[in-house]
Amino acid sequence: MLDICLLGTGGMMPMPGRFLTAMLARLNGRLLMIDCGEGTQVTMKMLGWGFKSIDAICITHFHADHISGLPGLLLTIGNAGREEPLTLVGPQGLEYVVEGLCRICPELPYPLKFVEINHDAPNPIHVGEFSISYCLAEHMVRCYAYRIDVRRKGKFDVKKAEALGLPKPLWGQIQKEGTVEYGGNVYTSQMVLGDARPGIGVAYCTDSRPVDRLRSFIGGVQLFICEGMYGEDEKKQKARENKHMLFSEAAQLAKGGGVEELWLTHFSPSLNEPELFLEVAQAIFPNTSLGEERKTTTILFPKEG
Amino acid sequence: MLDICLLGTGGMMPMPGRFLTAMLARLNGRLLMIDCGEGTQVTMKMLGWGFKSIDAICITHFHADHISGLPGLLLTIGNAGREEPLTLVGPQGLEYVVEGLCRICPELPYPLKFVEINHDAPNPIHVGEFSISYCLAEHMVRCYAYRIDVRRKGKFDVKKAEALGLPKPLWGQIQKEGTVEYGGNVYTSQMVLGDARPGIGVAYCTDSRPVDRLRSFIGGVQLFICEGMYGEDEKKQKARENKHMLFSEAAQLAKGGGVEELWLTHFSPSLNEPELFLEVAQAIFPNTSLGEERKTTTILFPKEG
Repeated sequence: MLDICLLGTGGMMPMPGRFLTAMLARLNGRLLMIDCGEGTQVTMKMLGWGFKSIDAICITHFHADHISGLPGLLLTIGNAGREEPLTLVGPQGLEYVVEGLCRICPELPYPLKFVEINHDAPNPIHVGEFSISYCLAEHMVRCYAYRIDVRRKGKFDVKKAEALGLPKPLWGQIQKEGTVEYGGNVYTSQMVLGDARPGIGVAYCTDSRPVDRLRSFIGGVQLFICEGMYGEDEKKQKARENKHMLFSEAAQLAKGGGVEELWLTHFSPSLNEPELFLEVAQAIFPNTSLGEERKTTTILFPKEG
Repeated sequence: MLDICLLGTGGMMPMPGRFLTAMLARLNGRLLMIDCGEGTQVTMKMLGWGFKSIDAICITHFHADHISGLPGLLLTIGNAGREEPLTLVGPQGLEYVVEGLCRICPELPYPLKFVEINHDAPNPIHVGEFSISYCLAEHMVRCYAYRIDVRRKGKFDVKKAEALGLPKPLWGQIQKEGTVEYGGNVYTSQMVLGDARPGIGVAYCTDSRPVDRLRSFIGGVQLFICEGMYGEDEKKQKARENKHMLFSEAAQLAKGGGVEELWLTHFSPSLNEPELFLEVAQAIFPNTSLGEERKTTTILFPKEG
């Protein structure tokens, strides 16, 4: 199972009572974050999942509201005792931007690994058990939507193990370690597992226009966290100019992508009461709800067959 | 009169319910800020003094908790419509550090002016009606204490004006504009004013050990805002190692400097209840109080004579 927390719901600037939009995923005690605006470490502290276990931080783009909290968070992670490398994922220029920001935290007690993504060859990135995919969004600057998948291996197949003549005491070991040696032969877990089972997918998209390619990218995820900068359909022109989405556009995207659930976030500072416009989105995609500060859910692996 | 607001009271990292230490001064509608950590713009928003009128931001040193909020604040100032230059004051290296931080806000709609201070020739810096002095503190990195003075001109001296033969309708103009021309001669305000009157002084010191030179620097200010990282005297060794002050050391400094009032701030994240140690400071310097989020005061010009 995968825990997801939406750390904040604001866009553009942090506000009293509204943290900037960022997401945290937790899997078997390890954390992955998407975006890190000013104040993100404070809402994380309120959440209480800790800082030391963050293995990757993915940045959608380099507008301040999505990255300005990074140097402070990196320091806090260091103060929490981290010494293992931390992977930063983001658009080209990531290392240059982070080098600039880190002039105020030049001596972190752990190394940073940079992965600058290239949408011409979008291979998934693997960090621990997280599989990270990305898709070029359409914003004022180069920006990516992310998708986090948790793959699930097939079930242990007793018949296969018995057919190989693998003794029972080694069955646990081969599943845990991936290989065992027995009688001079090496056996891999693939030899004793059934077909891979359906996994968990979560997609996160902000900031962007609702371009077609995003629809297939988010295809079938259990949870889609998407920006809804403006509630009113009357703001379509503004959304187009600033390369953001209306609530209704996010809902259309969720519907087109066949996702299970949509959370709206990244509300404009002028959108004081997003609840006034929720129905507009629900009329298009019923399983829409509003993001809230530290809204959390646990996603289970789909039931089989 | 000068309004002072302590925007936050935390040190090291922003916490739920505790913003990082920063100060805002307001004089005739113009603002001057000292330090700008992560989240400072949020507490400023709660205060409600606006963003557009910030003419100067002074940075004590480049540890993240004193400067990490700068790029976000600079953007918010731009969104508030500022087009006039903004002066940044700080230790040597300021322009390098800010250039790095501003990689996430490369297109501000107003120019930045950099003043890198040099304590070998500490001339006051004048920004509008604010006079900014500084003194080298003693911290892990180069760090400065600041003092903001508001000078007060002498009273208009009717006898001097009459002796010069300056007609009454010009009396207002010469005070307002500094000079008038009359009968082919130029008259300056100094010719019609009495001796300068006592002004207002506020000093701000964090992070530092309580070194001697600070005592004369803060001499006689109406308000001294000073760090008190640790409450317990038992933490003296820790304070020495980390180059911070105990409550009692800040109180000794305030007493030695003959200031009128002391506010303690920059509490360690481990100092959950600073009120437990207030008496320790008050026993040394009675007019000590604890900083609070957005604690505000108005300082009047001293009564004369």
